Amino acid sequence: MKGSKLEFNSPDDVEAVYYEAFRHCDSNVMAALWADGDVVCIHPGSGAIMGHEAVTRSWRHIFTDVDQAEINFKVDRKTTSDEITVHLVTEEIGSGNELALVIATNVYQKFESGWLMIEHHSSLVQTQPQKQTVQ
Amino acid sequence: MKGSKLEFNSPDDVEAVYYEAFRHCDSNVMAALWADGDVVCIHPGSGAIMGHEAVTRSWRHIFTDVDQAEINFKVDRKTTSDEITVHLVTEEIGSGNELALVIATNVYQKFESGWLMIEHHSSLVQTQPQKQTVQ
Repeated sequence: MKGSKLEFNSPDDVEAVYYEAFRHCDSNVMAALWADGDVVCIHPGSGAIMGHEAVTRSWRHIFTDVDQAEINFKVDRKTTSDEITVHLVTEEIGSGNELALVIATNVYQKFESGWLMIEHHSSLVQTQPQKQTVQ
Repeated sequence: MKGSKLEFNSPDDVEAVYYEAFRHCDSNVMAALWADGDVVCIHPGSGAIMGHEAVTRSWRHIFTDVDQAEINFKVDRKTTSDEITVHLVTEEIGSGNELALVIATNVYQKFESGWLMIEHHSSLVQTQPQKQTVQ
C-alpha cells in the first residue's frame, strides 16, 4: 500500500478510515488517505507539519510502540462542496487514566481518483480556564 | 453596520478586513464579515463557539476594554475552489512583553452577496515541548 492511495467516494468515507487508522495505529493506511502536495497536519500544541512525507512521518512517530489508541469522534458540522469539504469534529482521546478533549478541523479535497484528506488541524480544549490575552 | 454584512469579492479581501478588525478591536466590522448560520470560531485552548450571535459575542468580550491589538499574520497555504476556500495562517499576537505564536485555519464560503468567513480555528503553538500522548 505504501506510496499508493486508497480510493474514497466521499469525505465521510475518508474520515471513517482516518479514525480507524488512528485507532489501530496503522501508519500505512494513514499514509494512503492523505493527498500529496502541500497537505497540512497540526497536532495539538504543535506547529504546522506540511507535505505528505513529513505528515506521514509524524504519524509513524506517534504510532511508535503503540498498537491501539482509544479515540472516539463526533462530527459537529459539515460544510460541503463538490471540490472541498470541511468537517468540525470533537475527539475524545484516552491516554492512561486521562481523557483528552480535542477539537479538529478536517479538510478533504476531491481528486480524479476520489476524495483524500488535505488538512487536519487539532487543538486541545483546556478544561481549566487559561489566562486570556487578546484572543 | 450591525446586522448587515460587508461585501467581499474574494477570500483574501475578507481575511485582510478580519485582521484589521482584530487589530482595531472593532466588533462591528468583525460581526459584518462572518456569515450567518452555523459558523464556528475556536479561540486558542477553547472549545467551538457556534453560530453568528455567539461568535460575535465572543469577539465583543475579547475586545472589552481594549482599543488595539498587536497582531501580524502570514498566509502559509491556500486551498481554493469556487465555493469554499481554506487558508492556513500563522499569527503573532503581542500581549505585554510576550509574543504568542498562533496557527489558524480560516475558512471562507461564497454566498450570493460575496465571500464571508465561516470558520476560524486557532491554536497556540507551544514553544516548550509537551508530554506527547497518542496524538
